[in-house]
Amino acid sequence: MISISIIGAGNVATHLARQFVKLPQIHLQQMYNRHIDKLKEFESTTEIIDDLKQLKQANILVIALKDEAISDFSKKLQYFDSLIVHTSGSVAMSDLQVKRKGVFYPFQTFSKQVETMDFSQIPLLVEATYAADLQLLKNVAGLLSDNVLEINSKQRLALHIGGVFAANFVNRLYVEASLILQENQLSFDLLKPLILEVAQKVQDIPPIVAQTGPAYRGDYQIIDKHLSFLTDKQQKQIYRLLTERIVKTQ
Amino acid sequence: MISISIIGAGNVATHLARQFVKLPQIHLQQMYNRHIDKLKEFESTTEIIDDLKQLKQANILVIALKDEAISDFSKKLQYFDSLIVHTSGSVAMSDLQVKRKGVFYPFQTFSKQVETMDFSQIPLLVEATYAADLQLLKNVAGLLSDNVLEINSKQRLALHIGGVFAANFVNRLYVEASLILQENQLSFDLLKPLILEVAQKVQDIPPIVAQTGPAYRGDYQIIDKHLSFLTDKQQKQIYRLLTERIVKTQ
Repeated sequence: MISISIIGAGNVATHLARQFVKLPQIHLQQMYNRHIDKLKEFESTTEIIDDLKQLKQANILVIALKDEAISDFSKKLQYFDSLIVHTSGSVAMSDLQVKRKGVFYPFQTFSKQVETMDFSQIPLLVEATYAADLQLLKNVAGLLSDNVLEINSKQRLALHIGGVFAANFVNRLYVEASLILQENQLSFDLLKPLILEVAQKVQDIPPIVAQTGPAYRGDYQIIDKHLSFLTDKQQKQIYRLLTERIVKTQ
Repeated sequence: MISISIIGAGNVATHLARQFVKLPQIHLQQMYNRHIDKLKEFESTTEIIDDLKQLKQANILVIALKDEAISDFSKKLQYFDSLIVHTSGSVAMSDLQVKRKGVFYPFQTFSKQVETMDFSQIPLLVEATYAADLQLLKNVAGLLSDNVLEINSKQRLALHIGGVFAANFVNRLYVEASLILQENQLSFDLLKPLILEVAQKVQDIPPIVAQTGPAYRGDYQIIDKHLSFLTDKQQKQIYRLLTERIVKTQ
């Protein structure tokens, strides 16, 4: 039995806790948050606390807080003998100011609107200073996912940036498209099959091979027609920049 | 029985022909292309021709050529009594230089790598000058898809531009992400579950509500860290522009 306690009540904390309580090999010992009402969901399955003095030793203490809070918070845990990990993409492991440190980074977008996630395919990226701690993290990660990998802090940062492009910025392009449609009395529903097909295609084909569209074909007549149609200055900029980027690599 | 002939041998021509030959209500009468070898796939199911003089009257003649070729090509068909349609997003119906004109626009990305498509969910956008022709197009479209809509040429252009953002530019962001990962010895496979989840999410939630990430949270510490990590000038520009765009609408 591996004992784990989680610090935080955000999306990652919540989704990890929901997974841990389901696993017989894991004892979700405590959850800590300054505002205890945010942990209500777990009060029947684990001990919820809002006073750090009540936090006990555990095999692993997971700091699932905002990036900027992680380093400072870890100082408060420096007298714990537990393995202390954070769950962030862009915070270096060395930012943890404790002895036994590690990272447990689930590479997926979590939001409150999506109740439970299938963790089995989510990449879990782990890192630790000591070999035994790394093995412990790999064991826990292996209970959740078939997709466990050890990477270093620089690679993790690169992966997070890749995710910003492939998820956050992609979603923003969906927003841009929805705005353009809305202005022309068209429903966003029209885009849904296309959006799925494009995401589906790169599951099998490298994206560089899957590229299509006027920029890829070098069809400047259409590109000009599109640019004169767009009225929003920043939308035009996005169109120009990504078109140039596609044209350059053909 | 509705007789249809297709002009062209590209992705749209090929995918439409593959659908039409399967439908008992449609007779795919002829397929025309200057290079007849590109039509070999259909030689057992329809008459393939490379001489325009052999083209017969049909209920519908579909011009599935490159955008810039459509208008000029239509002139060659001006003495036909058939309904003549093109399949393009960004070409106005009025660009067809014939009397009975229309548009039959399947809103999906077609590529040779994907053999057959499930057309039932693909939006089919139709337009025609005459009411009877519009009805004919709606009937044909209804045989292929549950998602048939009449829109005008301006709306179709807007929809195409929306598709460029939500498909072509999205795919380019996948490419950017893959380049960032590659430079750091990480496999693109790591991004696949995230990409699917983001596309899946907007099937149920409007993209503006689904937005996550450092820009959405206004986390400038992370944003600065990401910008200093990126070395490619244009990648930095894309990062800045889309971040600004997300921040502005929060």
